[in-house]
Amino acid sequence: MIDRLIERIDELKSPVVVGLDPTEGVVPESYIKEAVEEVELNKMAVATAYFRFGCEIIDAIADIVPAVKPNIAFYEALGYEGIGAYIETVKYAKSKGLIVIGDIKRGDIGSTAESYATHIGFTHAAGHDFKVWCEDFVTLNPYLGYDSIEPFAKVLSELERGIFMLVKTSNKSSKDIQDLPIAYTTLGTLPLYEYVGGLVNHWGKDFVGKYGYSKIGAVVGATHPEEGERLRHTMDNTFFLVPGYGAQGGSAADLRGFFDKNGRGCIVNSSRGIIGAWKNSSGASVGEAARAAAISMRDDLNSVL
Amino acid sequence: MIDRLIERIDELKSPVVVGLDPTEGVVPESYIKEAVEEVELNKMAVATAYFRFGCEIIDAIADIVPAVKPNIAFYEALGYEGIGAYIETVKYAKSKGLIVIGDIKRGDIGSTAESYATHIGFTHAAGHDFKVWCEDFVTLNPYLGYDSIEPFAKVLSELERGIFMLVKTSNKSSKDIQDLPIAYTTLGTLPLYEYVGGLVNHWGKDFVGKYGYSKIGAVVGATHPEEGERLRHTMDNTFFLVPGYGAQGGSAADLRGFFDKNGRGCIVNSSRGIIGAWKNSSGASVGEAARAAAISMRDDLNSVL
Repeated sequence: MIDRLIERIDELKSPVVVGLDPTEGVVPESYIKEAVEEVELNKMAVATAYFRFGCEIIDAIADIVPAVKPNIAFYEALGYEGIGAYIETVKYAKSKGLIVIGDIKRGDIGSTAESYATHIGFTHAAGHDFKVWCEDFVTLNPYLGYDSIEPFAKVLSELERGIFMLVKTSNKSSKDIQDLPIAYTTLGTLPLYEYVGGLVNHWGKDFVGKYGYSKIGAVVGATHPEEGERLRHTMDNTFFLVPGYGAQGGSAADLRGFFDKNGRGCIVNSSRGIIGAWKNSSGASVGEAARAAAISMRDDLNSVL
Repeated sequence: MIDRLIERIDELKSPVVVGLDPTEGVVPESYIKEAVEEVELNKMAVATAYFRFGCEIIDAIADIVPAVKPNIAFYEALGYEGIGAYIETVKYAKSKGLIVIGDIKRGDIGSTAESYATHIGFTHAAGHDFKVWCEDFVTLNPYLGYDSIEPFAKVLSELERGIFMLVKTSNKSSKDIQDLPIAYTTLGTLPLYEYVGGLVNHWGKDFVGKYGYSKIGAVVGATHPEEGERLRHTMDNTFFLVPGYGAQGGSAADLRGFFDKNGRGCIVNSSRGIIGAWKNSSGASVGEAARAAAISMRDDLNSVL
C-alpha cells in the first residue's frame, strides 16, 4: 500500500491527505437538522449527518487527492452509531478509489494489540474471518514498545497495508515527552522523538517497497520544520504523514525539508482547511469549497517541490 | 470517584480490579453457539455473547471486588456491534454498583482529545448533551503531552471521574521507550517512565481527594516490582492501576511495595486469571469459577498487606 500511495501521489502530483474530522463546528447545521428530522434519534442522526458530510467531501476531492484521513475520535464521541458512520465512511472512500488512513492512535500490549490490529486485518469470530474494519493505514502510538506493534507487523507481512507511528506530533505539548533529552551516547543527548524515529525506521526495514519507503511510516508534525528536515535525513526508509499544515500553522515553505530530493517521502494532511472551507466561501457548497481548497493546497505544496 | 474507589477497596478489603477482556479463547464455545443461533448475524452474535459473558462475571464478583476494567480493544475488534456490547457492559457493571475503568489507552492532540474525553464526560450534539459513554475512569497514553490530557482534566474538575495515565506498562517491550535514560540533571539520568511519573504526579496535584490521592492515577505494571516501589515513593499523590498480576507473572509478594504504609494506593487487575478461571475448574460455571478466583486473589493480596 505504501507503493500505491506513492504512485497515487505521483499520478496526482498531490502529496495531500484530507482529514475527515467532522464536528458540529464544521458540518453545516442544515445537515444535522435534516438528519434529525429523518432519523429521529438524535445521536444516530448526527452520525448520519457526519457520514453524508464525509461522502460529499469524498465525492468532491477523490480525483484531486490520493488519501483521506478520518479521525475516529470524532466518530467515537457518538458511540456505536458514530463507529458505524466511521466504518461506512471508510468503505465509501475506498469505493471511490481513495486510500484511507484511519487516524486511530491506538497502542496496547501485545495480546491486546492483536485486537486493535483488526483495523487493518481480520477479526476471527465464530469460526469466520470478518473484515470488520477496512482502513489501509492506521496511526499508532509507540509508548508501549515493539510488542504493541508486532501484531500489526504480522498483518503487514501478509497484506497490502501500512501503519504510521507517532514520532513528533503537531501539538504544542508534544514537547512535554517527545523532546526529552535521551542520554544516548557518552558524547551527548538526542531528543526522544529522534530516538523513537530511529526505532521506527529500524522496525520498518523488513517492509521497504520499491520506492525505498517502508510500510511502517511516521507521523511528523508540520509545525516543526527543522525537526522534520532532520528526521527526513535520519529516517531514510520512513514515509511521513504530516499533520499541522494550514489551520495549525505549518506552511508549504516549512515543508520542503520533509520531502526527499525526488519530491517524495511525505503526505501532508489538512482537515479544517479543506472540510471547513465552505465556511469562508460565499455561496459555494461544502463539496465545491472543499474541492477548491484541495486544489489550492496541492498547488501550494507543488510550488515548493 | 478516586475517593469512592478507595472507600470500596477499604470496605471490601479488596484492592482488586477484574479485567473484562473477552476473547474466543476465554468465552465458552457454547455461549457463542447459543448466541449465533439466536442472533443469526455472526458478528452481532459474538458481541452478544461477549456482553452476556461480562454480565455473568459481573453478577458473580460485584460483592467481592470494587471495580471492573473492560478493555475496549476486544470489543472494538467486532466493530460497532462490539462497541455496543462494550457500552452495555459498562452500564450493566455500574448498575451492579461496580466502578468501571475503561481500558481505552487513548491519546490525541488537544482539539481531538476533546472527543475522546466524551468517554468520561458528555457528547454535545444536535443541541443536546448525550451521555454516550459512561466509564468512571479511563486509561490514557501520555506520549502527546499535557494538551492531550487537558480536556479530560476539565471533566475531572466538573464531574466525579478519573483517569489513569500509562507510566510503566506490564509488557516486555515497555523497556523500548519507557526505560530510556533521560538526561534530567547534570548529576545523572533517570528512566523515562520515572520522569513521566513525576509529570503525572504533578498534573494530579489539583485533583487530590480526601485520602491524599488524585483523580489522575497511573498504570504501573506488576511485572516491575522494584520500579513500582520506587514510583510509590516519588508519586506521592498518585493512585496506581496495576496490571500484570497472575497470568503475566506478577505475584502478591511482588506487589507489597506498590501499596502505601496504610495498605492503600493501588488496585491490582487480573483478567484471564479470573474470567478464564472456569477453564481450569472441573464443573464450575463461568460465574462460580470467577467468584472463587476473585476471592482467592483478594485473600492473596491481603496476605501481604
